[in-house]
Order: sequence, then C-alpha cells, then structure tokens
Amino acid sequence: MEIKYKPEELTKLPRSVEFRDGKVYIIDQLLLPREFKVIALNTVEEVARAIKTLQVRGAPAIGATAAYGLALLAEKSKAKTKEEFFDEFYRAYEILKNTRPTAVNLFWALNRIKNLVEEHREDSLSEIKRLIVEEAHKIADEDVEANLRMGHYAAEILPEGNILTHCNAGSLATVHLGTVGAALRVMHREGKLKLLWVDETRPVLQGARLSAWEYHYDGIPLKLICDNMAGFVMQQGKVDAVIVGADRIVANGDFANKIGTYSLAVLAKEHKIPFFTIAPLSTIDMSLKSGKEIPIEERPKEEVLTCGGCKIAPEVDAYNPAFDVTPHKYLTAIITDRGIVYPPFEKNLKKLFE
Amino acid sequence: MEIKYKPEELTKLPRSVEFRDGKVYIIDQLLLPREFKVIALNTVEEVARAIKTLQVRGAPAIGATAAYGLALLAEKSKAKTKEEFFDEFYRAYEILKNTRPTAVNLFWALNRIKNLVEEHREDSLSEIKRLIVEEAHKIADEDVEANLRMGHYAAEILPEGNILTHCNAGSLATVHLGTVGAALRVMHREGKLKLLWVDETRPVLQGARLSAWEYHYDGIPLKLICDNMAGFVMQQGKVDAVIVGADRIVANGDFANKIGTYSLAVLAKEHKIPFFTIAPLSTIDMSLKSGKEIPIEERPKEEVLTCGGCKIAPEVDAYNPAFDVTPHKYLTAIITDRGIVYPPFEKNLKKLFE
Repeated sequence: MEIKYKPEELTKLPRSVEFRDGKVYIIDQLLLPREFKVIALNTVEEVARAIKTLQVRGAPAIGATAAYGLALLAEKSKAKTKEEFFDEFYRAYEILKNTRPTAVNLFWALNRIKNLVEEHREDSLSEIKRLIVEEAHKIADEDVEANLRMGHYAAEILPEGNILTHCNAGSLATVHLGTVGAALRVMHREGKLKLLWVDETRPVLQGARLSAWEYHYDGIPLKLICDNMAGFVMQQGKVDAVIVGADRIVANGDFANKIGTYSLAVLAKEHKIPFFTIAPLSTIDMSLKSGKEIPIEERPKEEVLTCGGCKIAPEVDAYNPAFDVTPHKYLTAIITDRGIVYPPFEKNLKKLFE
Repeated sequence: MEIKYKPEELTKLPRSVEFRDGKVYIIDQLLLPREFKVIALNTVEEVARAIKTLQVRGAPAIGATAAYGLALLAEKSKAKTKEEFFDEFYRAYEILKNTRPTAVNLFWALNRIKNLVEEHREDSLSEIKRLIVEEAHKIADEDVEANLRMGHYAAEILPEGNILTHCNAGSLATVHLGTVGAALRVMHREGKLKLLWVDETRPVLQGARLSAWEYHYDGIPLKLICDNMAGFVMQQGKVDAVIVGADRIVANGDFANKIGTYSLAVLAKEHKIPFFTIAPLSTIDMSLKSGKEIPIEERPKEEVLTCGGCKIAPEVDAYNPAFDVTPHKYLTAIITDRGIVYPPFEKNLKKLFE
C-alpha cells in the first residue's frame, strides 16, 4: 500500500483538536450541524468540561484532547519546583481522567503521558514539560497517520460505486480524517465514491447531525436516510458496500459498534453486499474470545422517547441498547492501520500482533 | 374460528369515528400522544377539513369518516325537494372526495353511498336520507366486524410470547380495533401476549406517537424501540413473531407497507422468526401480479431532515420512500377477515375470491 495523499488533500476540515499558542482548540460538536465553530480552551478545567459535555466526542478525539490538556498545563504552569509541578500534574491527570468513565482511549492517552513523566522524574523541569508537549503532539499525529493508512488500505478493496455508512466514524470522532472518514475521503479523491448513503442513526443521530455535516462539508455526494430505509435501498441495488467503524473488535472478529450495525450486517448478507469494519489496531481486544463477552451499555430511555430535543412519544417504557455485536460471519474484511484482515479472522488477527 | 370477544371486551378506546345526535365524533389524532380528545364535527366542511389535516388518518378510518360526512348531510339538510337535496349531496360528495387524493377507501365508501342513492332515486326524500345514514353505519360496523374476525384468526396462529410490530395498524387507523390492533388485543385478552415491541417508525413516527399510545392505553405491556434496534432484540431471542399491516397485497402475496417493513422481514427470516401481515380482503389487489408493479410514493425530504417537529440535520440531500415492498417468500402467512392464507400464496389467494 502506498500513501498517495496528505490529510489536507483529503479534507477541508481543520483537525478536530489542536494545540498551539498555549491553547487547546476544538470544533464545538454541540453546535453542529447548526454552526461550525472552533473554540479555544485555556485551562485544564475548560478541557475537562469540553470532554464531559460532549463538545468533543469520539474515542480518538477525546484521547488527544485529554493529552493536550496535560500539554496545556505543562506550558502554562507557573510551578517553581518539580514537586510543585508534579502536584499540579497529578491533579490535572485526575480531573481529566474523571470526565468520561468508560472511554478507553482517554485513559490510554493520559497514562501514556503519566508513564513518560514518571520515567523522566529525574530530568529537569523544563525537559519534563517539553516531553509532555511533545508526547501529546505524538498522540495526535499518530492518530492522523493511522487514519491515513487505513483510508488508503480501504480504498484498495472497497468497490467503486455507492457506499452506505452508519453513525459517525469520521473526522469529528478522531483527530482529523476519521476511520470510515479516511476510507470515504480517499475513495472520493480517487473518483471512486459515487454516492454515500448516510443512516441517521437513532436515537442520538450521529449520522444526521455529524456524518451528513462533515461529508457534505467536504463535497462528498450523499443522501441522508432513516435507519429503516437501508434495506429498501439495498433491495433496489443502490448499495455496493457497507463500511462502519468499531468500538471493540475481539479475537474471533466479532465486533461491537453503534446500535443498528448488526441489522445492516444481516441486510448486507441477504443482498450479497460486502460489509467492512475499519478501526486502528488499538480497537482490537485479543483478551476476549468472542462477541458474547462484550458487555452492552444500556442508556436512558429518554433518548428513545425524544429526538433532536423534541418529545416524540407518550410516557411508555422503552429499551435503549447503545451498541450491538455483529458476529464475524457477516464481515467481508477488517481494515486496520496495519493492513486488511480477511477470514479466518481468529487466525489472521493473531498474526497482526506477532 | 369462533368469535369469543366483543369489541368492548378488547379495548377501552371508543371508536375512532362515530355518528350520533347529528354529529360526527373523531379522536383528534393530531393531539396524540400529548392529549386524548374526542372532537365533534358539525358540517360536511368540518369533516372534510379533519380528513385533510390528518386529524383522522388510516384508510378504513378515513372511509368511515367520509361516509358519516354524507350521513351528517342527510340528517341536517333543510332541502325541501329531492332535487335540492341531490344538489347538496353531490356537492358534499365532491368536497369529501377531494380531501386525500390517493385514499382508495375514501372513494370506495363515498361511491358505495352514491350508488345506493342513485339506485333509490325514485324513493321518497326521507327514505333516501334514512338509507344514507343506515349505509354509513353499515360501512363502519363492517369494518369493526372484519377487524374482529381478523383478530380472532390471528390469535389462533400467532405464537404465545413477544410480538414485534411496526407503524400503526391499530384502532386509530380503523374504526375501532385495528388489523394488527385486533390481533394484539385478542392475544392480550387471552394472556398470550407477553411483551409488545413497538418500532418507532421513522420518519413520521406512527409507532412512537400512535401505536405506543393506544396499546399502552389498553394496558398491553410494551417497549418502544428505535427501528434500528429490531435486529438486536431478535438476535437476543426476545421476539417470537412479527406482525404488520399492509397497504396493498398483490396476487402473488408480495405486499406494500410502511418503509422499514422489508428490513424487518429480512431480519425475521435470518432469525427464523415467523412473519405475518394482516389486512381485510379489500386490501388484496388481484389485478397486479407481483410487488414489482406497485408504485412507491416518495415523500418530501423535510420529513427525514426533521423529527417530531425538530430539525435534526443540516441542509443536505435526503431520500424518503414512504413504503417498501416485501416479497412473499418472507411471509409465513397472510391473515384476512376470510381466514388465514398460507403459501403457495398465488394459488391460495385466488381461492379467497372464488
């Protein structure tokens, strides 16, 4: 696989999180799709609040934002001694860690910097500060690099034509290009993406609010549909492939993703349409043998009883599983930043880690 | 099949349309689910407006409402001569006919009364008026009777346990019990309905707004879900059968129904869950050979870009097919007021009309 395009050749969007001039800049996702605005965060507390209130969301984007929160501290700290700085550092670490209780990337990014700091305890204060900022940039840059690689791999195997996606695994969910987002952008750049079908993705509408917005911003031709229309467009022969992100991929290739993914997988199989998931290696959890071991988060029923802020149903009972698990038998291939994995997944995923 | 229950033993709801004391009473469906209110219509113009603005909806409910519009005229008319009355009658007929351009039941009900009037042209004015009122009541009563029969047939073959439905084919869509509604109510009365899964049915939310409301009103245990959750609840073994209404069933058993029905059919097949449609004989159109001949209405994209009155997406393109067609191979059986039809549907549907 050859990297043909730079990120700025693939998207007009800025990074969803950046650090410069002693400030953390993020795209405020709560204002989307009504308003596209980059806001500056000036303190660790402001960074924590932005993560907590979902102004920034998507596992890789959250990880990088938290890392930059520590970089912000390193640049702004007025601590006179190392001890004083370490106090501030651990306090910031705790504040940032407690923003989203289940965000694996958040802990991973924060711990990566904490471990580095602890390895370099004996270095000078200014050197420690420099290392923190450098590491935060590395975390963000590596995410962009991984997305870029995934996107190029994907464009090699996705068929030319109409692609259907679900939820948002785009630029907004990562530092820059997205996972699905990178795949679609490379395909679009190469003239291979005819039409993108965007599932609205009830109940929280990440498809309607975020994917429709960001792909439209980049000039990708798309049509928004309700989730229950996917089967009909497949039946009409208007979908050539389905590609979705993943929240967790386990050792046998089963994977968890936003609710509705499993239904799409079944529909794709019925219509003989290839079905892909795309995620960085860090999403693969070899400690779980099958998807049956993945716990499914159930969220408040109010999300189902409302839509985009409007009440849509009477006060009845509702069920709101946030994710579902798609068994590996529905998958054509798993696209990672280290290459494309085909069945048998159990054997071939293992090879990635050798 | 033996009719075990009267309508009032199956639902606490009044009829969705009634005629008494010279007034047409309807449940105002635009106020649901926020408010349950029966409103009185005093003139033909008010009846026409109620149909036009969707205060009353659902093909059989619209047909009966229009028929009662003519009954209202017959009771209220101050015409002194037959000629004068016929003028008023044809004017009312035209006003009611022009409320909903594609409502087959509307034309069918109005023409049934018009034909009767024309057959009895030579009778006295008071006799003609009496016949109109009588015929309107017959139209409504026959609808209730047909639903009652369908419901009892359905309860004979639907498995005990959890049932999933889509859209609203309930009491609100008909004069009293519904098609799917009758099936669910008879099952519930017999203690065979453990849990009802109600699909919200985007974009217009007939499931969330109407089905959830009316079945909850009748004490049926239910859970509302987003359309994209149906596959997941099936995967977990929590659905024992799917039952949906039909807008049109053609000679080979293919049928058109609310968008999302086809996806459910595919999901039911994948999970080996029986899948039923239920509709009166009048829904079966033997003039079309296969579902490919059924035209699919495409509605404005604004319905997809909004939800329950809230804007949910940026100004992008959207696709909004209002119905889909489910091929007969996905159907376990078709339940009608004349009995249950099993495959081969082409042969067995024909028998119904012999």
